[in-house]
Amino acid sequence: MVDILRFVSDFFKRSSDKDKKLAADISQIIGSKPANIHLYKLALQHTSASKETGKSGFRESNERLEYLGDAILGAVIADFLFKKFPYKEEGFLTDIRSRIVNRESLNNLAKKIGLNKLIVFDGNRKTVLTHKSMNGDALEALVGAIYLDKGFKYCKKFIIKRLISPHFDLEKIVETNSNFKSLIIEWAQRENRNLRFEIIEEKGNLHNKEFIAQIVIDDKPFTTGSGYSKKKAEQAAAEKSCEILQLK
Amino acid sequence: MVDILRFVSDFFKRSSDKDKKLAADISQIIGSKPANIHLYKLALQHTSASKETGKSGFRESNERLEYLGDAILGAVIADFLFKKFPYKEEGFLTDIRSRIVNRESLNNLAKKIGLNKLIVFDGNRKTVLTHKSMNGDALEALVGAIYLDKGFKYCKKFIIKRLISPHFDLEKIVETNSNFKSLIIEWAQRENRNLRFEIIEEKGNLHNKEFIAQIVIDDKPFTTGSGYSKKKAEQAAAEKSCEILQLK
Repeated sequence: MVDILRFVSDFFKRSSDKDKKLAADISQIIGSKPANIHLYKLALQHTSASKETGKSGFRESNERLEYLGDAILGAVIADFLFKKFPYKEEGFLTDIRSRIVNRESLNNLAKKIGLNKLIVFDGNRKTVLTHKSMNGDALEALVGAIYLDKGFKYCKKFIIKRLISPHFDLEKIVETNSNFKSLIIEWAQRENRNLRFEIIEEKGNLHNKEFIAQIVIDDKPFTTGSGYSKKKAEQAAAEKSCEILQLK
Repeated sequence: MVDILRFVSDFFKRSSDKDKKLAADISQIIGSKPANIHLYKLALQHTSASKETGKSGFRESNERLEYLGDAILGAVIADFLFKKFPYKEEGFLTDIRSRIVNRESLNNLAKKIGLNKLIVFDGNRKTVLTHKSMNGDALEALVGAIYLDKGFKYCKKFIIKRLISPHFDLEKIVETNSNFKSLIIEWAQRENRNLRFEIIEEKGNLHNKEFIAQIVIDDKPFTTGSGYSKKKAEQAAAEKSCEILQLK
């Protein structure tokens, strides 16, 4: 009996020691002590290490927090760029945002702030190897956890002061031209080629339309691209042309 | 001289009378008096009635606010659904969100709250006729204006209390099955057909991957669909199959 009690007490001690260590690590990253440590534990729990909760087979992992954090991150960066560039159009703001928030940059960011070391995952599962966005996903989930734990204002401050400002060179991002459409237009003018963009197909329904754009050079179809707006489809087609013509 | 002074004074009187009327209309919609009426004016200014501001040809319209409001709306609805459905996976939450926030529903919502009557646009321009999302865009811009004017908390309350709760029947939205993949799988089982999904193409780069899925029935290719994830591509292919088989 005494042994069992000791085991139980040791178990909770170990568990609470672990929580204390995690709380300290999280404080380091977010700048203040977590109020609800369970949110952060969940944020760090990759789906490969998910546990069934008994609620009709629902498995607990960081995927729901990732969904929430992704939306909060998008809103905060939208606000940040809106105020940073008061005379830039929404196309520019959308473009810059997608260069800050994408799988590659979030993965890197997670490593830079040391979040990757805290993620709990099942290293034996094959899925982990194919899961290339584990670190970035955990970062989004962390944003979701901070939002729920500390509120929007604190979460916004965290994103700007601890993620964006120290790790992104906005000037450099702005300078890098990823406008493939203008690159290919400039090329055509330089090379004296006849270039046009055509929308050759519209697919899907009202809520989910997709367009296929084609680039025609000297009356010959060159590349196609698809996207959820005509502009995006043209950009995708232009990107492919730039690749082929080595304009990138 | 007296005439000019009277003209100027009349001009400002008319202009401030207009502002007062707009402030009253906005109060009616958002539930409190606007602090900065100019934000709301801008939110209601369609691009067809945009004005050049002298800052290197930048034209002022509601498009920037729409970009901001779109992100805020997405975040608030993500939060709302996250809390409303604690045991649902992120795929479910994403699906429900896209059924609440889409062009058609935002257009309808804008009309329901009377926002469409306040929009300033150039009725003579042909573009207006082709601009089918004018009302929904203005609603997103209004959300952006409220966020800037009153903060996140107030804006969130506005979205939930004045947009979602009175105008969406969540139960009904959840019940409507738009899971075309399960519809087609059920059909195949019922009809004793051999059905399989194949990913036949992967396009794009690391940041912007696109998949083409194919549905094969009794070893014959039936429909294809594309999307930015394998799941979405399969759904798109399944939706087309459902259309052809009239399962929708």
